[in-house]
Amino acid sequence: KVIWTLLVTILGYASSLPVGEDALCTAEELAKYRIIFTGKWSQTAFPKQYPLYRPPAQWSSLLGVTHSSDYSMWKKNEYASNGVRDFAEKGEAWALMKEIEEAGEKIQSVHGIFSAPAVSSGTGQTSTELEAHPRHPLVSFVVRIVPSPDWFVGIDSLNLCEGDHWMDEVSVDLFPYDAGTDSGFTFSSPNFATIPQDTVTEITCSSPSHPANSFYYPKLKILPPIAQVTMVKIKKSQLGLSAPFINLPAKSNEIIDTVS
Amino acid sequence: KVIWTLLVTILGYASSLPVGEDALCTAEELAKYRIIFTGKWSQTAFPKQYPLYRPPAQWSSLLGVTHSSDYSMWKKNEYASNGVRDFAEKGEAWALMKEIEEAGEKIQSVHGIFSAPAVSSGTGQTSTELEAHPRHPLVSFVVRIVPSPDWFVGIDSLNLCEGDHWMDEVSVDLFPYDAGTDSGFTFSSPNFATIPQDTVTEITCSSPSHPANSFYYPKLKILPPIAQVTMVKIKKSQLGLSAPFINLPAKSNEIIDTVS
Repeated sequence: KVIWTLLVTILGYASSLPVGEDALCTAEELAKYRIIFTGKWSQTAFPKQYPLYRPPAQWSSLLGVTHSSDYSMWKKNEYASNGVRDFAEKGEAWALMKEIEEAGEKIQSVHGIFSAPAVSSGTGQTSTELEAHPRHPLVSFVVRIVPSPDWFVGIDSLNLCEGDHWMDEVSVDLFPYDAGTDSGFTFSSPNFATIPQDTVTEITCSSPSHPANSFYYPKLKILPPIAQVTMVKIKKSQLGLSAPFINLPAKSNEIIDTVS
Repeated sequence: KVIWTLLVTILGYASSLPVGEDALCTAEELAKYRIIFTGKWSQTAFPKQYPLYRPPAQWSSLLGVTHSSDYSMWKKNEYASNGVRDFAEKGEAWALMKEIEEAGEKIQSVHGIFSAPAVSSGTGQTSTELEAHPRHPLVSFVVRIVPSPDWFVGIDSLNLCEGDHWMDEVSVDLFPYDAGTDSGFTFSSPNFATIPQDTVTEITCSSPSHPANSFYYPKLKILPPIAQVTMVKIKKSQLGLSAPFINLPAKSNEIIDTVS
């Protein structure tokens, strides 16, 4: 059995994938995936200002959507929607769910919403199922970094379809983004709205170029990935009764060692 | 069009419903529901020790399951599982998801898991879809009260099936429970494990009978509901493209006024 594995790393994975109207998906039927989010935000990897108390480092719920190229949940260098702003600043999902709903109603650009429970530490895991459709083969999601001003990790329009078939497995390293709506520099900065709003930008070890930035590590070339997401296609024989859970470890932390 | 609405209030709703092996569900096919969770934990309704900072009053992700009477997620006056303990104390969902998975594999007592994003204030809303099956017509879920020692709200084995048909709509008022694993008395008590573990108990305005208890209101007969859940059957014509969202308000707080 051939497993198609695409391990996409760092910076600009979207541009390397056939995303957009030209990438016609001719795969048949719906595809179901198990999506597994792994937090890799440890004090070892990110010692600077690592949040230990009230609240300690953790991740919000994961909120995602499968869609066509007519919808965009968020995009680097573009302005965040009000829904993404509420989610990135406060973890409040309602407005974003409404935006997705409206995109589904007005222009039929959305197949389905999915969410996974929050992860209560920097290095745990969470998981859920998602369904993609040949006309809606793109996956986007966001997970808020907690605590933070308006920082998140996520995926923008990853195409699960390759021509006439669905990918069996995709893993993507995730790096922090700034939603551009709050001017805080550090994990525990007080709220301070950015007016006018800025665009969504990636936070790197050198940008924002200011020593107060929680991710400013001038000696590094690139940040280690702060999280990782894996999507595994669920075989038809496994559908139902939580079969996709099989092979996941008993404790979420056990997998951390094997992937880092 | 007849709408079957069952508004179940306060204390012991489970015993008033035909739950258990005797309640055979002969309804056909799968049923899909939109589940809407509404937090009603306001400072007005619950002034005592209302958490305003680090963290302010809020709700965890919602984690739920549809199942048969051979599975129980949690039950009043019984001991919480390790998964429920982790979720009630820390909002950590992984162990509970694994327990549900194992119940699905070993005794086929589970149809599916569902989750909804966290609510970032005491009075917001969240929502997702769930699927029930004639052999798995019961719904259970938990939502952690944040901050709290090990307190949660939830539903235990609510039967969505009535004989040969699925209920169209069910609303249930929710009241706080103590998972029995942490001895804290107040929302912001430090961790202090209860050894030996106690059973799951309902927290009322008079029990635990101690003035330090955050829900101790000696002048009240009963607490106001701290949350509410509504499950609405999705008509086949509405399936897909987020139709079940229709009629929900633009802002989650708008609905609060109409239901309280």
